[in-house]
Amino acid sequence: MELLKNRICHSGQVIGNDILKVDSFLNHQMDVQLFQEIGKEFRRRFAADKITKILTVEASGIGIACIAAQYFDYVPVVFAKKFTARNLNAEVYESKVYSFTKGTHYLIRVDKKYINSSDNILIIDDFLANGKAVLGLLDISRQAGAQIAGVGIVIEKSFQEGRNVVLKENIRLESLARISSLKDGKITFVD
Amino acid sequence: MELLKNRICHSGQVIGNDILKVDSFLNHQMDVQLFQEIGKEFRRRFAADKITKILTVEASGIGIACIAAQYFDYVPVVFAKKFTARNLNAEVYESKVYSFTKGTHYLIRVDKKYINSSDNILIIDDFLANGKAVLGLLDISRQAGAQIAGVGIVIEKSFQEGRNVVLKENIRLESLARISSLKDGKITFVD
Repeated sequence: MELLKNRICHSGQVIGNDILKVDSFLNHQMDVQLFQEIGKEFRRRFAADKITKILTVEASGIGIACIAAQYFDYVPVVFAKKFTARNLNAEVYESKVYSFTKGTHYLIRVDKKYINSSDNILIIDDFLANGKAVLGLLDISRQAGAQIAGVGIVIEKSFQEGRNVVLKENIRLESLARISSLKDGKITFVD
Repeated sequence: MELLKNRICHSGQVIGNDILKVDSFLNHQMDVQLFQEIGKEFRRRFAADKITKILTVEASGIGIACIAAQYFDYVPVVFAKKFTARNLNAEVYESKVYSFTKGTHYLIRVDKKYINSSDNILIIDDFLANGKAVLGLLDISRQAGAQIAGVGIVIEKSFQEGRNVVLKENIRLESLARISSLKDGKITFVD
């Protein structure tokens, strides 16, 4: 998606060899006009799929997922909530996610009322790096017995393992910008 | 806003005498079509104000703020991030917020790059109860020297102190649904 790549080149900030800060338009300050184009592009890529629900995780996936839902016939958006403490509760699907940033695990939860076996789910998130958050969302979708149409990612760090982690699960992955390297402060895309 | 009140009556769940669960359409599963009507109503109420930025706090304010921005000429949306540990950082505005739910304080932060003295800010959040989160957002806006056009709330629990807390700050408050009581499982609106 050229518009997105241009924006990443123009406004992204590389820190070290593997961190890309895009908080001026994606995950702190948010450019909703860009989100609309992102939403339309997800729709184009999943045009043949009858999506019934969009699933994401708090916090930075929420804005993108809500804007995207407008192009998917207004299907409901569900965001998994993050917790640090276990709390046995029969009413939620829960999955454990490892955070590389923090070096610890956290839990994500979705109320059982909001996804079920008749759903065909599109998982959306802003970043794909190690793939742990997406694995958690896949786990929760499967616990619910739902179909998974695929995963839509805004920015994929293709030099990390996330892509292979998702593909190994036999899940379709659509990343709108794929970054092959951030070495020496230079943003290089796949292809 | 009648549409919203009807939805609250139809889908809201009262727990005890003061908790209203609206996670089927507002803050866990999200009805984006309803969010559009909410966004239009905020625009109608702040039609005379030249808003330059919408400010909210993660997580449940984000979806509403992004959808609303579409009706405010696509102004940028900024969400304050929550932290539990202090981290001295000259590049952020920070405010301390007391959580009644958890009985502890947390910190909210906004990067100084994303709000400034030329901004006229609309603060948006899903709920107003004790007003502590809104106070934190007001504090951050003032640290930036920004103008504050007002606060837009989806559901106000008018039997708690939040409304007075905001009005005492001389800030305009627009709540789309004002609940005067949740006693005996019955939802009663102001007026």
